Amino acid sequence: MRARSPSANGRVPRVRGQRLRGAILRRAADLASLDGLEQVSIGRLAAAMQMSKSGLYAYFTSKEDLQLATIDTAWRLFEDHVLDPPDDELDALLERWISYYEHEIFPGGCPFVTAGAEFANRDGPVHDLLAAAIERQVAALEQAVARAHETGLGAGADAAQLGFELHAILTAANQRFRISRDPTAFAHARTAIARLLQQRDAPAEHPLPGRPELPM
Amino acid sequence: MRARSPSANGRVPRVRGQRLRGAILRRAADLASLDGLEQVSIGRLAAAMQMSKSGLYAYFTSKEDLQLATIDTAWRLFEDHVLDPPDDELDALLERWISYYEHEIFPGGCPFVTAGAEFANRDGPVHDLLAAAIERQVAALEQAVARAHETGLGAGADAAQLGFELHAILTAANQRFRISRDPTAFAHARTAIARLLQQRDAPAEHPLPGRPELPM
Repeated sequence: MRARSPSANGRVPRVRGQRLRGAILRRAADLASLDGLEQVSIGRLAAAMQMSKSGLYAYFTSKEDLQLATIDTAWRLFEDHVLDPPDDELDALLERWISYYEHEIFPGGCPFVTAGAEFANRDGPVHDLLAAAIERQVAALEQAVARAHETGLGAGADAAQLGFELHAILTAANQRFRISRDPTAFAHARTAIARLLQQRDAPAEHPLPGRPELPM
Repeated sequence: MRARSPSANGRVPRVRGQRLRGAILRRAADLASLDGLEQVSIGRLAAAMQMSKSGLYAYFTSKEDLQLATIDTAWRLFEDHVLDPPDDELDALLERWISYYEHEIFPGGCPFVTAGAEFANRDGPVHDLLAAAIERQVAALEQAVARAHETGLGAGADAAQLGFELHAILTAANQRFRISRDPTAFAHARTAIARLLQQRDAPAEHPLPGRPELPM
């Protein structure tokens, strides 16, 4: 991928400009996943893309603008890999979510975890967009739980509570794996999820983990 | 828990030097909890303490030295607030742990979560010390689970699995609270913990908050 001079002023054809902007943001999302959004600066990204800083300023007016666009890009990738197809079954959704961490779709793991911790105590648009992304993750889990209710998941399952717990287990798998580099975290997460789903099923439909027929 | 090596050159009286070093590190741990360990630099800390940078270099030879000492200090505070007394019962330990997040013993929440995400993908002594701190947190939970076994916790409780799940729930409470500023996260965590303890007790001894009849 070659870096080219872009255009705030229309000198670069629109399609090529959009493609380059997408490539810049994909790289920015990888950087954010590895080192956090503070590392996603015009200067560092220009170096990573072998572009000039002034070239990048044609696409992003400020560091904050770049960071917000990076979060959007990361979200779309998360959505493509995990939340699509929408209205899918809960256990399929959860397995895609774990795989997304396990297969390192982002090289440093979930950028929402990394950047969420980084911006948790700050104010401003970047914090707010990250907070909204995390709430959307939890809401997606709650909706999948609610759909599962309709198809037989135990009526005792409180969607908000189960959404919290599933999100906790999923993100913990990512975090423990990142810091320890030990994939046991994914096995623990799958066991925890199988149990969470099973205990709320009536009758139990999900065999316990450790057995070959495990559907997760 | 006394501070070590106050003065590189011995020009500061030892006791006063130790006290000041402790105060510097306490401030550094607060900064790390709010903004991450990268913000714990000699320059920024000197400004926060109204000291000269050269004054701080008498205590810390490098940024990395300062960061490592900050993690030590944060760990001792965590230990004092959460892990003491050692060999305490599991449910008392867990309640102290949640309270430690809830009452913001560190102003930005758990510094191991913040810095753990920040350094998860890096190499070096700071990553390694953070990874060790997180493993010690999980080990403390596993040991408390193992002690609970001896006093009647259900034999089905796998200490490593339950340690993973409890740590996931605890740290998720911290993270969701920090980014959303919504204390509902603590209620969700307490409900999840009560259920985790209950389902492994035989007979069940921990009523589920808000819904006594549901064995979730």
